[in-house]
Amino acid sequence: MHCDPIARRVFLNAFFRAGAALAACGSASVGPLSAQKNASERLIVHSVRPEDFETPPHLLASWITPNDVFYVRSHFYTPDIQESAWRLRIDGDVERPLSLALNELRQMRSTTRVVTLECAGNGRAFFQPPVAGVQWRKGAVGTARWTGVRLLDVLRQAGMKAGTRHVWLDGADVGIGRAPDFIRNVPVDKAMHPDTLLAYEMNGQTLPVAHGFPLRAVVPGWEGAYSVKWLTHIRVADREHDGAFVQSGYRYPKRPVMPGTAVAPADTVPLTGLVVKSLITAPAADAVVPLGRVWIAGVAWAGEDDIKQVDISTDHGRTWTPARLGRDRAPYAWRQFEYEWHVREPGAYLVLSRATDSRGRVQPIVAEWNPAGYLWNAIDQVRVNAGPV
Amino acid sequence: MHCDPIARRVFLNAFFRAGAALAACGSASVGPLSAQKNASERLIVHSVRPEDFETPPHLLASWITPNDVFYVRSHFYTPDIQESAWRLRIDGDVERPLSLALNELRQMRSTTRVVTLECAGNGRAFFQPPVAGVQWRKGAVGTARWTGVRLLDVLRQAGMKAGTRHVWLDGADVGIGRAPDFIRNVPVDKAMHPDTLLAYEMNGQTLPVAHGFPLRAVVPGWEGAYSVKWLTHIRVADREHDGAFVQSGYRYPKRPVMPGTAVAPADTVPLTGLVVKSLITAPAADAVVPLGRVWIAGVAWAGEDDIKQVDISTDHGRTWTPARLGRDRAPYAWRQFEYEWHVREPGAYLVLSRATDSRGRVQPIVAEWNPAGYLWNAIDQVRVNAGPV
Repeated sequence: MHCDPIARRVFLNAFFRAGAALAACGSASVGPLSAQKNASERLIVHSVRPEDFETPPHLLASWITPNDVFYVRSHFYTPDIQESAWRLRIDGDVERPLSLALNELRQMRSTTRVVTLECAGNGRAFFQPPVAGVQWRKGAVGTARWTGVRLLDVLRQAGMKAGTRHVWLDGADVGIGRAPDFIRNVPVDKAMHPDTLLAYEMNGQTLPVAHGFPLRAVVPGWEGAYSVKWLTHIRVADREHDGAFVQSGYRYPKRPVMPGTAVAPADTVPLTGLVVKSLITAPAADAVVPLGRVWIAGVAWAGEDDIKQVDISTDHGRTWTPARLGRDRAPYAWRQFEYEWHVREPGAYLVLSRATDSRGRVQPIVAEWNPAGYLWNAIDQVRVNAGPV
Repeated sequence: MHCDPIARRVFLNAFFRAGAALAACGSASVGPLSAQKNASERLIVHSVRPEDFETPPHLLASWITPNDVFYVRSHFYTPDIQESAWRLRIDGDVERPLSLALNELRQMRSTTRVVTLECAGNGRAFFQPPVAGVQWRKGAVGTARWTGVRLLDVLRQAGMKAGTRHVWLDGADVGIGRAPDFIRNVPVDKAMHPDTLLAYEMNGQTLPVAHGFPLRAVVPGWEGAYSVKWLTHIRVADREHDGAFVQSGYRYPKRPVMPGTAVAPADTVPLTGLVVKSLITAPAADAVVPLGRVWIAGVAWAGEDDIKQVDISTDHGRTWTPARLGRDRAPYAWRQFEYEWHVREPGAYLVLSRATDSRGRVQPIVAEWNPAGYLWNAIDQVRVNAGPV
């Protein structure tokens, strides 16, 4: 699936030069610069400016996704932020408006959470009829260890007034041309959840520029657009933000609609949690596998819920067998799975994975079409050739 | 699904004038001429010459498909046959070559069988990547009560020589331009099966011209191209026929191949039996259904095997419930099914049906791609809107 003729793999000079520079501040878990450069060539580029890069599924084989292959979703141009000049303002319906330097945030109590982020539009390319937007296929998803402060702690420090219901998040990026500013609205219950973070580290490194340096929200289990990058301004309010990215974008029909149907914003609700989903990371699409034992592997996630089971089919969905779930686990983090497949006959096969979560949600055969192409989560499929053919 | 912009519904003057004339010889089960004319307007026309007409699924609601809405598959132009001049020749490796008039066949012991016929290419339109050929969608299938003589009886009358392995069937139609004659090859075991017929009646009527007047083979449970129309010549042989419709057409890859792959004829085998499949006949595609009780109905078949179960999903294939199977049944005939659906919320729904047969075969989620687009049998799906919306 990573052979999309529209997507191009280019040498992401600017992007990864920045990444490499930041890696110097990071942990020993980062490879040498040359390895990062190689990884960069393997991302799928949907747009160079703004930066929209997708991870091919075979690079999602580890529980923690390395920073240099983590998908990038940017609505607008990447802002050029100097740490010394950067401040986080907290204002609105608060007792004590704040302006915090990064250093002040770093001195607060830190929290680390392993969280899977996924773009709401991941899989948009598979909807029929097609819908406008970045044509993400499978890899606008990744899992990182995020370190920062609890949004809760910052909000308490500012002192939220009674009756506040919403928290608006704004980053340093600005709308291109006449596009509105990218501001997102988090309901206060989710904002005050102890797992909702303002992260300044990603996998033990300083947050890379592409991922929101110096600070991004991490709203765990919810679609990725809540996890605002390059965060500069938090506003507490008694009402929902009235901008386009709250009132028009990232919304879902209240009722399922026939494919191709236009839906008025009034008939939609904001997206929140991610849906149950799985992704086969090995074998790669169109791989040639030997006869005998073949390991099928992948990841499965369910937003705020846990993965309970992943089933595998190697016969076009006629029969299913449970895969073994991986040992690594955390709330909001995907679960790895593996399945020992015995290939007896040469020929082409279709490998399918189907996840079920702790609420009993299961992946559909056909994803629910919606006008903006969000939350695509049909049963995953990968074709492989078993040789000799 | 019957809104294919390529297919056109035209007034099939020539075709149904012939049908109406023949109906005069038939049983009282046929409606008045005006009803036939109305039915004709509702078929999906893939080609007027040769005649390739498909039945929209909602017209397949009865166990027996009326002649005037039964799908038509013709490789070449419909021959103009006068019963008085017509003969069936039986020759080749036989003791006594025969030349039989229709009257002689009618004087032999007659046999009636209810048999579902389906074009091997039914569903071809759904394959991705697309494959060449008539772009049948769902309705190149139908069930009729066929009356005629056993092929076995005719072959015994001619006296098959020892060592004969194949029976070649040839009709009065001839190849268009430089196309080869349409001749099909039936292995002797299937030809000598007591259920393999030479039919001169269809649903109690003289066999309509479009369906092979005055005589067609009915090779039950096998893909429709074995049931040669306008039959004039049966040749018994010790080898397979070497024509294009045996050596190139109606063949299937020995091993499953990746979609889009070319396959050499040497790597293929002749198609034989049909696969397990189901078709939702109600509600119609894109129908608006009321809230409350809605009947889902359809048909399911499995070639030479029996339908054991049909399951219905109304939640995009997440959960399944068995449908009730119809009372009418016969070997080689489809089985009706129905399911009482309680629609509680307005909105768009995807209704799915999945059949399982007596051999344990079950419909796949994704059909096996093959170069000629045969045997498409993925789980059927119909979208409906539950109102008020």
